Amino acid sequence: MPAAAAHNHDAYRPTSASSAGAPHLRPVTFHAPESVIYAQGDDARLLYRIQYGAVRVSRLLADGRRQIVAFYLTGETFGFEIGAVHGFYAEAMVNTGLTAVERCSAGTLPHELVEIALRAMIRAQEHLLVVGRQSALEKIAVFLLDLAKRQECEAVIDLPMSRADIGDYLGLTIETVSRTISKLRAAGIIRLHSARSLEIVRPERLRMMSV
Amino acid sequence: MPAAAAHNHDAYRPTSASSAGAPHLRPVTFHAPESVIYAQGDDARLLYRIQYGAVRVSRLLADGRRQIVAFYLTGETFGFEIGAVHGFYAEAMVNTGLTAVERCSAGTLPHELVEIALRAMIRAQEHLLVVGRQSALEKIAVFLLDLAKRQECEAVIDLPMSRADIGDYLGLTIETVSRTISKLRAAGIIRLHSARSLEIVRPERLRMMSV
Repeated sequence: MPAAAAHNHDAYRPTSASSAGAPHLRPVTFHAPESVIYAQGDDARLLYRIQYGAVRVSRLLADGRRQIVAFYLTGETFGFEIGAVHGFYAEAMVNTGLTAVERCSAGTLPHELVEIALRAMIRAQEHLLVVGRQSALEKIAVFLLDLAKRQECEAVIDLPMSRADIGDYLGLTIETVSRTISKLRAAGIIRLHSARSLEIVRPERLRMMSV
Repeated sequence: MPAAAAHNHDAYRPTSASSAGAPHLRPVTFHAPESVIYAQGDDARLLYRIQYGAVRVSRLLADGRRQIVAFYLTGETFGFEIGAVHGFYAEAMVNTGLTAVERCSAGTLPHELVEIALRAMIRAQEHLLVVGRQSALEKIAVFLLDLAKRQECEAVIDLPMSRADIGDYLGLTIETVSRTISKLRAAGIIRLHSARSLEIVRPERLRMMSV
C-alpha cells in the first residue's frame, strides 16, 4: 500500500464553505488513489471533509479479509472516533481533495457535527441490514440506490469504488459482484457507461429488488 | 407484541443527572418486558436515556427475519435518527425505566450528544465487523467482552437479552448461540449463574478467541 501523498493546494478554496462560524479556511490536501489518509492507531484529532473524490474506511480482520465499513463521497465528512486514535483506516479510492476540520476547536458547529455523526450512525446500521441479507441482487440493488441518493442523482451515478471494494463492503466475492451487475445489465435495469459510471435505467425495478 | 406500557414514576430521580445544563428533569417512564417504546414510522423528536433496564433496536427484514441493530444498557442513550421519524423500532427487554430528552431543545448539551452519537456510530461499525465474521465462537466472544466493558465489570455480567436476541444481533440461530455458550462453559471459560447472569472466568482465553 503506498504511503499518503499529501500536497497542499493552497490556491483551491471550497466554494460551499459551511456557513457562519467556519473558523479557519484550511487548505485542501491532495491524496492520490490508493494512498492512506490515516491508519489504525493514528491520532484522531481531525475530521475530513471531501471536496472532491471518494474515500473508503476499513478494518483488516484476523482471517486476512478486509471489511469496508463505509464509503464517503464528495461533500461528506469522515474520521469520527470516540477515543484519541483511529480504530479503522481510511484510503482515497480516486484522486481526492480533503479539508481538515478540528473536532474540538471552538469554531466548529456542534449542531452540524451532530447531524453528520447521526447520519454516519444510521448509515452504519443500514449497512448492517444490507450485509445481513442473503441475496446478492438485493445487496447490490440497495447499494446502487443508496449511491444514487447520496449523489442526488436518479440516473447516472459515479462508481468511484472497484468491484473488489463493493465486495468487501457488502460481504460478496468480486466474482459475485461482477456477475450480479452483469445480470442487472442483461435485464435492462442498469446500463454501464464505463467501469466507473453506471446509469439506472429502471429505478422502479431496482427498488422492487431492494425491499 | 404487547403495546407500550408506560407509567410515570415521578418519585424516581436519577442520581447521576448529567452535570450542568440538564434543563428539565423529566419523569421516568416505566416499560414492561417486550413492550414497544417506539415503532418504525413513529415521530423521532425524543431521545431516551436508560435509568435501569435494557432495550433492543431492530428492523424486520423482507424475508421475515429480524435484525437487531443495537442493544442499549443502563446509562446509555438511544433513539437517534436523521429524519423526523424512526427507521427502526425499540423494545424493552426487561423492566426498563427511561427518561426522555428532547433533541432540539436549547437546553441539551450538543457536545455530550456528539459524543453519544459517535459512540453509537462506532459501535454500529464494530457490530458490522462482528456480524461479518465466520465463527460463532468469535462472535460470541466479542459480544460478551463488549457487554463486560459496557457494564464496567470484568467478571459477572448481566445478560438482559434472550438467546434469540443474541442470535438476531449476531446473525446466528438460537441453537448455535446456546451450543456456543455451552462450549465456553464446558471449556471453563465462562460460568453461568443463571440464564441471565454469566461470569467470565478466564477473560484472557475469551480475548484470544475474539481477535
